[in-house]
Amino acid sequence: MDIVGIISPGDMGSAIGKVLGENGMDVVTCLEGRSDLTQLQAEEAGFRILPTLNDVVRTAEIVLCVTPPVEALGIAEQVAASMKTTSATPTYVDCNAISPGTAQRIGTLMSEAGTTFIDAGIIGPPPGPGRRTRFSCSGLDTAAFEELGTRGLNIRVVGREVGQASALKMVYAASTKGSAALWTELMVAAKALGVGEELAYEFSLGRSELAEHYMGEITSMPHRAKRWIGEMEEIAATFQDVGLTPRIFQGVADMFRLVSETSLADQTSREPDPPLETVLEVLAKQAQTNH
Amino acid sequence: MDIVGIISPGDMGSAIGKVLGENGMDVVTCLEGRSDLTQLQAEEAGFRILPTLNDVVRTAEIVLCVTPPVEALGIAEQVAASMKTTSATPTYVDCNAISPGTAQRIGTLMSEAGTTFIDAGIIGPPPGPGRRTRFSCSGLDTAAFEELGTRGLNIRVVGREVGQASALKMVYAASTKGSAALWTELMVAAKALGVGEELAYEFSLGRSELAEHYMGEITSMPHRAKRWIGEMEEIAATFQDVGLTPRIFQGVADMFRLVSETSLADQTSREPDPPLETVLEVLAKQAQTNH
Repeated sequence: MDIVGIISPGDMGSAIGKVLGENGMDVVTCLEGRSDLTQLQAEEAGFRILPTLNDVVRTAEIVLCVTPPVEALGIAEQVAASMKTTSATPTYVDCNAISPGTAQRIGTLMSEAGTTFIDAGIIGPPPGPGRRTRFSCSGLDTAAFEELGTRGLNIRVVGREVGQASALKMVYAASTKGSAALWTELMVAAKALGVGEELAYEFSLGRSELAEHYMGEITSMPHRAKRWIGEMEEIAATFQDVGLTPRIFQGVADMFRLVSETSLADQTSREPDPPLETVLEVLAKQAQTNH
Repeated sequence: MDIVGIISPGDMGSAIGKVLGENGMDVVTCLEGRSDLTQLQAEEAGFRILPTLNDVVRTAEIVLCVTPPVEALGIAEQVAASMKTTSATPTYVDCNAISPGTAQRIGTLMSEAGTTFIDAGIIGPPPGPGRRTRFSCSGLDTAAFEELGTRGLNIRVVGREVGQASALKMVYAASTKGSAALWTELMVAAKALGVGEELAYEFSLGRSELAEHYMGEITSMPHRAKRWIGEMEEIAATFQDVGLTPRIFQGVADMFRLVSETSLADQTSREPDPPLETVLEVLAKQAQTNH
């Protein structure tokens, strides 16, 4: 297996393709409707850019879908349609932060299109030198994705059912991004209520390590908040599907929506993180404006 | 100042009274409508039990209200009525986990009743030997409560406005109890989705200290969950009042409500914490039942 399609080459997709390319794979993509930054990243990562999705589906032996979760189902539908048009059936891997239920719907689409579907989840930053990025996967036949373990990716099979890898991603992301949103909210509230310094003092008495950890999460979150909104809604749906309240993660999505309404969200991953005080001030002001 | 009234002598109230009693104060209370456990705790703590609330208001120089937050406003109304009946006006201190808005409503009631009101918040476990319990307070005149700093309590003034001490309590409790609920939810979801072991493995790779911390919070929470429901709703209201989403903490309240529907909530603070696996199993089953 030598040709991999990646849709789309954003921060995560381009980093994955770069690693695969450096390990001898031919990485193809198409850029219809993608941003200038995505195009730049695809070029920098050395992708071969094909004119259309049909070309990608015809050319690639395996297609990895790496997008914001809100686009995952739509892209799968386009790829399934493209498979019917082209009669090409590359293995399809959904790598997105989606609920097990959404993964199962995509699995059904791919079965109907006549190809193998692999559910996958990514934990960690975009892969690269010194980065600890882990890919988990599940499905009836995960061999094609496992092969990428010899091409520079760290891959682990977590089960034989579609949905298991997504479930793992959901609960893990809940612990990281959910906590980040919760701490952001309470720090913004403390600022708005004029007790920020008193709260810092209380943390210094017994929870300084925890608090310090989360202050770092608050400042590194803003430029990623926009794409996390959909992911948090997937988590809410996942939890609701097992009878748990969706409201915590609907609220977490609300927090990332608030961040995305501010200038903080316009930063790119290439700029340094803003100072904590700036993040809290901007968010407190935006909350007041929305109130 | 030698006579303090405490309403009511639950886990927290009885521990506070015990410390004040050991430091030479005469601690009075009444037990109308209180549980057998509360009665036992009041007796063990050496409180002088008076027949009615009017007797407490007539006898005490300062009254501390220490209850579940949902009862705070109702008790304040009863005490204010009692002040009118008895023409006695002891200083009234609300020590509960309530929103600044609720604290301000109680402040208005007490002004109308002709007495001094002090807003207070408690951070930490019930006070006692080796316990680090901090009382913060705010209000125009906090001197009477500050005096209890010479009677074994650790008291700090955080401002001159009613609502500031409550605000500090809200944001601090958001960080502890909110996080506990969020981690409980994701661990229960992992269990229900059959990826608990995979999640534990992922945590072991990079977040083991954080995860270990929160596993401890999950097991020590169940017997306290019931009384936290109202507190989380106060936090939701506090955040909404500054334009932030109420949904995270409405969901946190949902989680504690789920816990309170199970046998886990029947444990008392005198029994050892249940094992993590038991907590997760019971909650996953209850969620499924409610679904």
